Amino acid sequence: MKVIIVGGVAGGASCAARLRRLDEKAEIVMLERGPYVSYANCGLPYHVGGTIENESSLLVATEQMFKSVFAIDCRTNCEVTGISAEKKTVEIKNHITGEVTTENYDKLVLSPGAAPIRPPLPGIDLPGIFSVRTVPDARHIREWLDRENDHSVANAFTGIDTVSKPKHAVVVGGGFIGLEMVENLVHRGMEVTLIEKLNQVMPPLDPEMALIVKHYMERKGVRVELNDGVAGFSQTPNGSLEVGTEKGKAYPADIVILAIGVKPEIALAKMAGLDLGERGGICVDAHMVTSDPDILAVGDAIEVMDFVTGQYTLIPLAGPANRQGRIAADVIAGRDSRYRGTQGTSICQLFEGTIAQTGATEKVLVRLGMNDFEKIYIYPNSHAGYYPGAKMLVVKVLFRKTDGMLLGAQIMGEEGVPKRIDSFAMAIQMGCTIYDLEEAELCYAPPYGSAKDPVNFAGMVAADILRGDMPIAHWNTLGDGFLLDVRNPTELAASSVPGALNIPLPELRARLGELPRDREILLICRSAQRAYFATRILLQNGFKARNISGGMMSRSHTMAE
Amino acid sequence: MKVIIVGGVAGGASCAARLRRLDEKAEIVMLERGPYVSYANCGLPYHVGGTIENESSLLVATEQMFKSVFAIDCRTNCEVTGISAEKKTVEIKNHITGEVTTENYDKLVLSPGAAPIRPPLPGIDLPGIFSVRTVPDARHIREWLDRENDHSVANAFTGIDTVSKPKHAVVVGGGFIGLEMVENLVHRGMEVTLIEKLNQVMPPLDPEMALIVKHYMERKGVRVELNDGVAGFSQTPNGSLEVGTEKGKAYPADIVILAIGVKPEIALAKMAGLDLGERGGICVDAHMVTSDPDILAVGDAIEVMDFVTGQYTLIPLAGPANRQGRIAADVIAGRDSRYRGTQGTSICQLFEGTIAQTGATEKVLVRLGMNDFEKIYIYPNSHAGYYPGAKMLVVKVLFRKTDGMLLGAQIMGEEGVPKRIDSFAMAIQMGCTIYDLEEAELCYAPPYGSAKDPVNFAGMVAADILRGDMPIAHWNTLGDGFLLDVRNPTELAASSVPGALNIPLPELRARLGELPRDREILLICRSAQRAYFATRILLQNGFKARNISGGMMSRSHTMAE
Repeated sequence: MKVIIVGGVAGGASCAARLRRLDEKAEIVMLERGPYVSYANCGLPYHVGGTIENESSLLVATEQMFKSVFAIDCRTNCEVTGISAEKKTVEIKNHITGEVTTENYDKLVLSPGAAPIRPPLPGIDLPGIFSVRTVPDARHIREWLDRENDHSVANAFTGIDTVSKPKHAVVVGGGFIGLEMVENLVHRGMEVTLIEKLNQVMPPLDPEMALIVKHYMERKGVRVELNDGVAGFSQTPNGSLEVGTEKGKAYPADIVILAIGVKPEIALAKMAGLDLGERGGICVDAHMVTSDPDILAVGDAIEVMDFVTGQYTLIPLAGPANRQGRIAADVIAGRDSRYRGTQGTSICQLFEGTIAQTGATEKVLVRLGMNDFEKIYIYPNSHAGYYPGAKMLVVKVLFRKTDGMLLGAQIMGEEGVPKRIDSFAMAIQMGCTIYDLEEAELCYAPPYGSAKDPVNFAGMVAADILRGDMPIAHWNTLGDGFLLDVRNPTELAASSVPGALNIPLPELRARLGELPRDREILLICRSAQRAYFATRILLQNGFKARNISGGMMSRSHTMAE
Repeated sequence: MKVIIVGGVAGGASCAARLRRLDEKAEIVMLERGPYVSYANCGLPYHVGGTIENESSLLVATEQMFKSVFAIDCRTNCEVTGISAEKKTVEIKNHITGEVTTENYDKLVLSPGAAPIRPPLPGIDLPGIFSVRTVPDARHIREWLDRENDHSVANAFTGIDTVSKPKHAVVVGGGFIGLEMVENLVHRGMEVTLIEKLNQVMPPLDPEMALIVKHYMERKGVRVELNDGVAGFSQTPNGSLEVGTEKGKAYPADIVILAIGVKPEIALAKMAGLDLGERGGICVDAHMVTSDPDILAVGDAIEVMDFVTGQYTLIPLAGPANRQGRIAADVIAGRDSRYRGTQGTSICQLFEGTIAQTGATEKVLVRLGMNDFEKIYIYPNSHAGYYPGAKMLVVKVLFRKTDGMLLGAQIMGEEGVPKRIDSFAMAIQMGCTIYDLEEAELCYAPPYGSAKDPVNFAGMVAADILRGDMPIAHWNTLGDGFLLDVRNPTELAASSVPGALNIPLPELRARLGELPRDREILLICRSAQRAYFATRILLQNGFKARNISGGMMSRSHTMAE
């Protein structure tokens, strides 16, 4: 059996190595159009920033290793330029020799990945405008950043030493790569402007959570411009760039990073006549088999089922690509392996902070009309508050109202985010309810967590809602309830809600007479915990009451829409 | 309804607060014999060490807060000295006033906790010997450590300035508290000796994993003496202590910390005639109700079901105590809440390292005759190896052979341990198999993990075994197979296995003729990954082969038994 694998990075390389382990006799050809196989795509921004200093660190496995250890006919700089699904052949162009050959296959695996979106804007091909996808991309960016500005020579005539490195960077697009590039360019000492066409950064988050990310970046000195697209690029007389926007603004840039997103590489799939999905990716079944039974596809180029929403989606992430590659190898070797679908778990470092998400977001649920959900905002400590160094986490959790099924979680903070997002991720995979979260037995010692871990706490708050113990309200849909703030008067000095009556929690039982019995009372405190206690007091005394989720902590970001 | 709660820390305090939220009208009396309620028991070692500098930080909630916010009749320094289950009364002694009163109850909740074991050894009451259970305990230890040694005065006659603080510490018992005290005493600059009667530290770990902990402590300058019990204590002429052991050794000590373990406080339960279990704790049903329907019990004093092994056990941990307190409150308020049992998740900081465990250990499975299990040792990076700062994790995973059910995990390392143990903990709670672990979609970005997270990797290795792709062997039960080391010759210089043939993996396919066909070949490499590749090559070429789990990494600690 001869298997040709197109693409030698995450999905393709995993497939090739696994297939060899399962079948010592198969002829396996792995073709990579770039100069490297199995490189650490996800490390590129950190190589630009200098955290990963040596380019060689990014090369996880080499062509030579695939040949010697796995006996795989691994060829770099070899691009598949044609496919005949009928003849079961591919046409291969060797970019070094220029030679074009044709090879037949019994099974073909497509792992071409996704390409950075590069809109045909005026000036997009000017020098100094980069995407971040390959090792050479990162190398070119580093070279560009390390060079002295062209205008340093001209200015030498003035006698003023203005020899300088590039200083202003514009990053276009506020997704993962965009944010990682922002961090790494700041790390290199640059002044960075982020331009994002949407009304939020980090599309995997809901907008009110992304707003916190925006403010965090701004506190780190990054200029963030939302709701504005790039119109074009121009070169200034001194050789640097200017980025013009749809709103007519202009931003100086010594370098521009395009991080607008990626689109599946489907040219080969089209050539082979494979079915494509509505999201623009290659259609595969659970066995990673395309509409042609002898062609499989894996990685960023395919559409996969989001098992939380039941929708097909594109997930350009390394983890799923690796697992899909393994499954494709299993299937070729005659095994009944299946991909379960994705839940879209993702994480991003941003300065000292971490942003992570798993499962469905509110905006996706609403878009799909899946309105049987509730949400909570909580702001727990990353570890026991009495142990030094605890940081506040911002946590949003979505769950189904009818049965309590956990649907999604979004978390950000400066400590403990990966721990919690993985607990939520494992919980979602296993069909966990918020009642299960209440009871989860997670690790606790003062440096790492609390006796009630944030994951437990999320479950408890959610369960209080679903059991009817704590009706909940949200700042952006309050209605005309009677606002009651149960904080201490000293806390109100910093920020308070206009029109809210203040009765400190310890006085509430004695002052019930001051409250209306004919209106719904909406409760406010710092983080909704004391307001929960107050809600219980009021409900049991015959009042109508709802607790505003997240209290004052959630007010600024959930009301800003 | 009048509810009396005995004990005002984790379980009792949780119960009291929750009961008030559920029932505004109940009369709730919470009695604590010590001076503080709801204090951070788990923070005491860090207060001794100075990381938590202020004692007040340990007081999570005060008596006053329970009174004002929860309208609870909260009384500190009040010990319950008698119970009449028949009359439904308790006798209360106020340690401040000396007054003894009797109160009746409708429901009684016992949350007395567990007391440090204090064996009746000669000299055990000498000054300078401490347990670590209460805020005053920590205060007394700090005072003792801060004082100048008595012998400093005597030595002043010599003219040499020997005024010094206590220098030598002996910690008796190598469990959680023992290890936390070791760390904190070293943090204070002391020379610490740990004496443990068992053949291992950290009883929640298997011995071969605990051996790594022992070596780690020794590298940090701690003297660790296993297999030796304390025989008694004596005072030296200069006023310091000497700890004598059963083996006849003597260790000087300016302070001794007793951390031998705890035993459930069952005096009240006995008085009330409640059923006790084989492990010495109070028996309760899933509703936390004891053999007396009007008496509930929670926390360290009760026996709970370990839902992995099906055995009753004692779990003196804050997380379960809190959840049990909530459940007891629910049940008193007429709800059908049930405790699911425990899986014993625990974690411990030790210098820069972290040690964690969840589910069953091998020694417990063997003791119970639950022999349908397999184990693996893996040594993955805490995050992507190409991103700086990755630390090696040591991971042991236990799973059922017949169906792949995950049974337990033990992890240690200097980064990323809490994240992984919580993934395993959530997985065990939800009845996860190792096949589920293979597919888990956990967060991945270079600073936090790998595309194949250690949790995925554990699942993949375990599944390779159960699918028959990789028969496994263990160093301590190798048998007389033919040893084949597939590392590169340069690697063998550091350590190698006597008698093993060396064929580097890339040469293996060409040198199969050198291998015996009539003997089982046992494969060796650094961490068992290349040996896995070699196992696949050999199996598919008709050889009998097994991979030695963990490779050279596991050799020293798993063979040392």
